[in-house]
Amino acid sequence: MDGNARPMATVVMKFGGTSVANIERIQNVACHVKREVDAGNKVAVVVSAMAGVTNQLVAWVKDANPLYDAREYDAVVATGEQVTAGLLAIALQAMGLKARSWTGWQIPIETSAAHGSARILDIPGAAIKKHLDDGEVAVVTGFQGIEPKENRVATLGRGGSDTSAVAMAVALQADVCDIYTDVDGVYTTDPRIVPKARRLAKVSYEEMLEMASLGSKVLQTRSVELAMVYKVRTRVLSSFVAPDAMKPFRIENIEDIGTTVCDEEEIVEQQVVSGIAYAKDEAKVTLVKVDDKPGVAARIFGPLSEANINVDMIVQNITPDGRQTDMTFTVQAAELNRALDVLKKAKADIGHFDIRSSADVVKISVIGVGMRSHAGVAAKMFKTLSDKGINIHAISTSEIKISVLIDAAYAELAVRSLHSAYGLDSE
Amino acid sequence: MDGNARPMATVVMKFGGTSVANIERIQNVACHVKREVDAGNKVAVVVSAMAGVTNQLVAWVKDANPLYDAREYDAVVATGEQVTAGLLAIALQAMGLKARSWTGWQIPIETSAAHGSARILDIPGAAIKKHLDDGEVAVVTGFQGIEPKENRVATLGRGGSDTSAVAMAVALQADVCDIYTDVDGVYTTDPRIVPKARRLAKVSYEEMLEMASLGSKVLQTRSVELAMVYKVRTRVLSSFVAPDAMKPFRIENIEDIGTTVCDEEEIVEQQVVSGIAYAKDEAKVTLVKVDDKPGVAARIFGPLSEANINVDMIVQNITPDGRQTDMTFTVQAAELNRALDVLKKAKADIGHFDIRSSADVVKISVIGVGMRSHAGVAAKMFKTLSDKGINIHAISTSEIKISVLIDAAYAELAVRSLHSAYGLDSE
Repeated sequence: MDGNARPMATVVMKFGGTSVANIERIQNVACHVKREVDAGNKVAVVVSAMAGVTNQLVAWVKDANPLYDAREYDAVVATGEQVTAGLLAIALQAMGLKARSWTGWQIPIETSAAHGSARILDIPGAAIKKHLDDGEVAVVTGFQGIEPKENRVATLGRGGSDTSAVAMAVALQADVCDIYTDVDGVYTTDPRIVPKARRLAKVSYEEMLEMASLGSKVLQTRSVELAMVYKVRTRVLSSFVAPDAMKPFRIENIEDIGTTVCDEEEIVEQQVVSGIAYAKDEAKVTLVKVDDKPGVAARIFGPLSEANINVDMIVQNITPDGRQTDMTFTVQAAELNRALDVLKKAKADIGHFDIRSSADVVKISVIGVGMRSHAGVAAKMFKTLSDKGINIHAISTSEIKISVLIDAAYAELAVRSLHSAYGLDSE
Repeated sequence: MDGNARPMATVVMKFGGTSVANIERIQNVACHVKREVDAGNKVAVVVSAMAGVTNQLVAWVKDANPLYDAREYDAVVATGEQVTAGLLAIALQAMGLKARSWTGWQIPIETSAAHGSARILDIPGAAIKKHLDDGEVAVVTGFQGIEPKENRVATLGRGGSDTSAVAMAVALQADVCDIYTDVDGVYTTDPRIVPKARRLAKVSYEEMLEMASLGSKVLQTRSVELAMVYKVRTRVLSSFVAPDAMKPFRIENIEDIGTTVCDEEEIVEQQVVSGIAYAKDEAKVTLVKVDDKPGVAARIFGPLSEANINVDMIVQNITPDGRQTDMTFTVQAAELNRALDVLKKAKADIGHFDIRSSADVVKISVIGVGMRSHAGVAAKMFKTLSDKGINIHAISTSEIKISVLIDAAYAELAVRSLHSAYGLDSE
């Protein structure tokens, strides 16, 4: 289009609710899209509902019947994205671009029948590709598709627009899936706590997954999983940076802005530790002096699981006499009271125990694919905390992360100390 | 369903924006629907957007680009009805009824490609009928369908939900199409002006059409035309009457509530005059002493037509010497200034004339299919007005109506006098 011999890249751009909160913001999004089109890129845009719209729709549904039919919930709530898609297409046309909106059922984005939390099964990319080849911008409703058997709209659940965007990138064999958010990338830790936190130019899918499950709200977990499976280069960018202050996508300067979530092998200089995460909404439960009979763990965690309470870290200690055990675990702070209720009801089954609980704890995690091949990462974590006099209540580890539970009062101190200890501070 | 041997009737119920303005009103609508289902009727419901929602959507579209793409306008605006349909289905389920929502594209309601003012081309009724036979209430989005070539949502234009309802009644071969509004029927004239106005139990399609085009806003003109073509019995009812204070539909007591718009032959005791209508938003334009050359009318009305200005009544008088003519006609008051501009620009073409105009006029109409077979209806109208000293500026007639233009100050007096003169006052 611009006479440039460079082959055009296909870019999927995704904008969330705050990025399209009103007409002015939608016009700002249109400027971001225009920058990519002007640079010769083919563009598909995935949009969420305008901030506040989905909440209003959900409130209406719950008012109509708290025990609502999930299929009707989907029919109602999916309209939010349809409104944004039409408005953005109109805003793009106002700037002289060719554009049209696409709903999930028009493409069609086929999903499972699990209304409200459906999974994308298939997106035929051919129709949209043809439109992109004609120089038209495709504006696609995020968060939804169609369940083909009943021909009814199905939503992917909150935050599903990230997943829609990655799935569109798969269908279009896009060069990048750019997720525009209210932050300009993924940081080594929360910059509000550690001013020396650095933007990560690249981070691996595995690390991003750990960060997502450990409290980072930048990308939805499922979208990262999908990106990992199909090796979709996914970049986190800010829609609040002025559109003309950002470079259009070129594969060779992908690292200049935002954070690219990509395959580990694309990351040349891999750090041992990529980031420090913390989660404040944790609560600790300790069952003291439980009789250590076979099957006691099942009798404790079975009822919690049946009540849909997610248990995270679990630590078990045997008392000196070996006949009783202390069992410590964490749940979401919001579910602490419900968890305690469930345990009291299960007491007859579990046998004798005293119970102690606290919501005054935080989980601090050190994440990095590099720790697979480096010894001493955990030891450095424990020593760093110990040097600051911070007591560890529980530890859990995976291949690429170490998490500890500590008193909430030490959260900032712990994050800052670890950030320095692993050499993550910017100069 | 209730063990009654009576064959079940199929009822289409249509509810407009004020009838579904909030969740409470939607639950009230659900009660109306339940009454019909409990009586053994099969029910399809056609709904508009919640009052205010469409206006908000239209405002967003116009903000995004005043010169919007009509196809994107439709994609955005059609979501209003989709929300209502889902919410009503949920409210019906909360009352223990089987119900599901249907969008225009799911049925599919096929339309022309005239986005924003599309015409319904076809509705396959089989799928919905099967659901009705299973005892399920079908809640259908009004005002919209799908343009099959491009597979895009098309709206019928403002007020199109009435047309959707009649078209659904055609597709389902329904026994009645009940249009719920904020009035409890069609009256002989406006009850706010004439307290003795009577509800008409039945009115013919032709009369309803005249009433609609003469200012009655009870039913959209196109919906009455469609009902007339397919002979759909269409009833005007109030959604603001308590649901349990109304009888469910039975063909034998159809006259007990509301006004049934039906074939002339179904009306046993046809009055000569059925109603008196008035329209305040008229303006009169008189071109004085126009040269009476061949083709002068075309030179006057051609430019108005090109400017999309609807001309209604036209009266031409020859001056005594026969060489000049006075031409009087009416336009919508809102278009008066535009009409005067057009005429000034066309002056060179038309030749000499003076221009006089007034927006201070009203059109009073007497309507009744009975006047076809009765002489003296017009004479009675002119005498009644003359007796009250009311001057007539212009007259126009059709087979079943006589309209006169008079000074606005006499509007109420004229309507009241005519209402009495034609024997329409209730006792």
